[in-house]
Amino acid sequence: MHEQLPSDLALQSVLERLAEGRSAALKRLFQFLAIPSISTDPAYHEACLQAADWCADALRDIGFEARVEPTGGKPMVLAHWRAPDGTKRPHVLFYGHYDVQPPDPLEAWTAPPFEAQLVDDAQHGQIIVARGASDDKGQVMTFIQACRAWLEAHAALPVDVTVLLEGEEESGSPSLAPFLNAHGDALKADIALVCDTGQWDSQTPAITAFLRGLAFSEVTLTGPSRDLHSGIYGGPAQNPIRVLCELVAGLHDDNGRITIPDFYDDVREPSAEQRAAWRALGFDKDGFLGEVGLSVPAGETDRDVLEQLWSRPTVEVNGIVSGYTGPGTKTVIPSEASAKFSFRLVPDQDPAKIIDGFHRFIAARLPGDVSVAYRGEGGSPAVGFDTSAPAFRATADALEAEWGKAPVIVGCGASIPIVESFRTRLGMDALLVGFALEDDRIHSPNEKYNLTSFEKGARSWARILGALGANDGAR
Amino acid sequence: MHEQLPSDLALQSVLERLAEGRSAALKRLFQFLAIPSISTDPAYHEACLQAADWCADALRDIGFEARVEPTGGKPMVLAHWRAPDGTKRPHVLFYGHYDVQPPDPLEAWTAPPFEAQLVDDAQHGQIIVARGASDDKGQVMTFIQACRAWLEAHAALPVDVTVLLEGEEESGSPSLAPFLNAHGDALKADIALVCDTGQWDSQTPAITAFLRGLAFSEVTLTGPSRDLHSGIYGGPAQNPIRVLCELVAGLHDDNGRITIPDFYDDVREPSAEQRAAWRALGFDKDGFLGEVGLSVPAGETDRDVLEQLWSRPTVEVNGIVSGYTGPGTKTVIPSEASAKFSFRLVPDQDPAKIIDGFHRFIAARLPGDVSVAYRGEGGSPAVGFDTSAPAFRATADALEAEWGKAPVIVGCGASIPIVESFRTRLGMDALLVGFALEDDRIHSPNEKYNLTSFEKGARSWARILGALGANDGAR
Repeated sequence: MHEQLPSDLALQSVLERLAEGRSAALKRLFQFLAIPSISTDPAYHEACLQAADWCADALRDIGFEARVEPTGGKPMVLAHWRAPDGTKRPHVLFYGHYDVQPPDPLEAWTAPPFEAQLVDDAQHGQIIVARGASDDKGQVMTFIQACRAWLEAHAALPVDVTVLLEGEEESGSPSLAPFLNAHGDALKADIALVCDTGQWDSQTPAITAFLRGLAFSEVTLTGPSRDLHSGIYGGPAQNPIRVLCELVAGLHDDNGRITIPDFYDDVREPSAEQRAAWRALGFDKDGFLGEVGLSVPAGETDRDVLEQLWSRPTVEVNGIVSGYTGPGTKTVIPSEASAKFSFRLVPDQDPAKIIDGFHRFIAARLPGDVSVAYRGEGGSPAVGFDTSAPAFRATADALEAEWGKAPVIVGCGASIPIVESFRTRLGMDALLVGFALEDDRIHSPNEKYNLTSFEKGARSWARILGALGANDGAR
Repeated sequence: MHEQLPSDLALQSVLERLAEGRSAALKRLFQFLAIPSISTDPAYHEACLQAADWCADALRDIGFEARVEPTGGKPMVLAHWRAPDGTKRPHVLFYGHYDVQPPDPLEAWTAPPFEAQLVDDAQHGQIIVARGASDDKGQVMTFIQACRAWLEAHAALPVDVTVLLEGEEESGSPSLAPFLNAHGDALKADIALVCDTGQWDSQTPAITAFLRGLAFSEVTLTGPSRDLHSGIYGGPAQNPIRVLCELVAGLHDDNGRITIPDFYDDVREPSAEQRAAWRALGFDKDGFLGEVGLSVPAGETDRDVLEQLWSRPTVEVNGIVSGYTGPGTKTVIPSEASAKFSFRLVPDQDPAKIIDGFHRFIAARLPGDVSVAYRGEGGSPAVGFDTSAPAFRATADALEAEWGKAPVIVGCGASIPIVESFRTRLGMDALLVGFALEDDRIHSPNEKYNLTSFEKGARSWARILGALGANDGAR
């Protein structure tokens, strides 16, 4: 037990165990990668069950109590390690997923996607090429390796650990919410560790601390009671497409700021310090936009791209449809026009309040004769973690010790539903630490995970576990 | 020959023939209505051929030279009556169509659609209920009856007459343009008479003298090179839906006026006299809009509804589509957004010039990173007839003599392609005179034609033929 040893010495022997077990670790990862656990394709249902069994076996093998829990879809792997002496200690819940994206298009792969290869790469040294190498099997195995090394070196982990591995992350996680509701007690820990994110760059670790929330609404405007002939009615008859377009156009002012009254009321400005830190990152906005064929940042004209992505709310139209959309022409004035809107939210913005403000914005601008109906509305608030919390600090220090530089505290423009679920259903914050890189080609052919990501990832977790154990703040 | 007789006496005997032949006329119309000549449904191809033969027989029966001309689709009926003495006299081309709309939904009919019924109607007296009663078999037969009565009474018509009956009017007239090109010489007359329009009301005849033209364009905007995740890119990435909506919203100013530079350059203002005449009609704009669920006139705020429909150009979006339009939500920023636009034009506006101005309008407003592609562009100019031309005046006088009040000179917001084709391909103006009423339920179940429309329609044509013969202006 680490309390009986000076903690750096205890860690040292864990890191040595990781070094000694390198080739065995890689062999185990390759076994895991060989299972085509494509959750979205029913043809691979058996492979998903096999992957879940493989994970449970791997966890049992190092000393966890593990079981495969059936759900309405793919099963969950649920495993526990508790100190045998029953000492009350920090308790973490590790979350990852064993399912992967389909490998299509197959012909774009340089080797079969489920036969992992270790390949020499000019930029990254050795890389592991296979579907799931980075997302998320490689990342999951960094954590399991760290636990193995601790248990081999000390027959104990520095903290109590629950592991939850999902098999439907790539297909919408339909079974997750019911599972969290049914097994909340078995899952509740002091903090969740999630290994499904990336580093800042290959030399710099990152902790994701800000996740934008989401609110969505589908708007249908109805003007004339039926589709009209634009020759007979064009001019005097209200066209709902035009009204809808005017609403969309009116959502932003000339500076890209959203015009809905009170929309920014609850938005906190990032601190000058935070802004300075983001600017110091030297984010390559030209590369970020250039990769998708863009060169001019849209959005708020007085905000940096990174500041927009990590700290500013948005509204987007995700889809619009009305009238005749087939080949050729049809001179119709449609009765209805619809659009799907989504808002990205920042901490303290309430999705319900945002939707309400959106309704009032529309009601105030709706011309006579046009009615509005809403559907498919909902949302989830943004998440911002307390970066001064002891567990957060301890994790940051552990990462700095491994990488030789402090982790960048990053935001994520998208929400990560599991983090929101842990917070709302289990009252648990999360630490989002991952070792993926932007060029890992996740969801694409020739997905890869750097060998250094895999090995330094495991060392990072070994250190983080030690730091959380030494630090009561995680409790 | 009418020249040998005082023309009112000559006409009197024609009107008497019509009165004597009332029941035989109705019997012939019912035969014609019994043929299910639905041009859009291949199952009724034989019926269309049968209807064409029936028409040719009916015209031969009264003394026309008639033949059924094959086309790539349904045949044309082409018939001529020329003065046997070869006297040079005015020559008219009568146009109508023998095909009908499908009768669906069948269950909404009170009697089988192809078994015409004479029904007592509280408002209109006796009405003829059948598919095609008003559109266009009943109207065609008003003209043929008038010719029959002239020929029975005087063994001659007051003018030379060519009859062209089409069988694809309800399915887009694909064979018409090639037919006009191939048979132009046989069809060219001094003026065309078209009987496929309506009266002002059941007591008041009308001549349609203004038809708006059309220009159309499909616009596709491309922003990002692929669909983006709105969480990862929302804010800094340009959303082409928003750009498209801004373009649409910018097409009109707050007064409903189109903002495209030079758009109104060639638009003539109606004369004060014309405007006064339209206002005097007491057009029921509330009824017109109310029938389609509207109450507030849209369009140009300083123009009457009738003035808008008959004399003002418009632009409409007929369809728009982009992004995710299925059930539920998908947080996508789409790469492309498309909309179909159509312009209604007034006389002297050139469709090509309008499309060109539209392109320049878009080019001037397109943000960086967004490209535009156009397709499906084309159009046809508006038509405005000279209402002071002798043939027009003669027709108006003939209608006034029959109905006891002057015909209303009306516009039509939509283009009527045959009229445009007669003008551009044969260099021939048209007189659009019809006896349909707004409540005739054309294209709907229980289509009807008032018996008075049928009988006074035939009397009207008898008078018009006489007037055109007496009036050299039609030459």
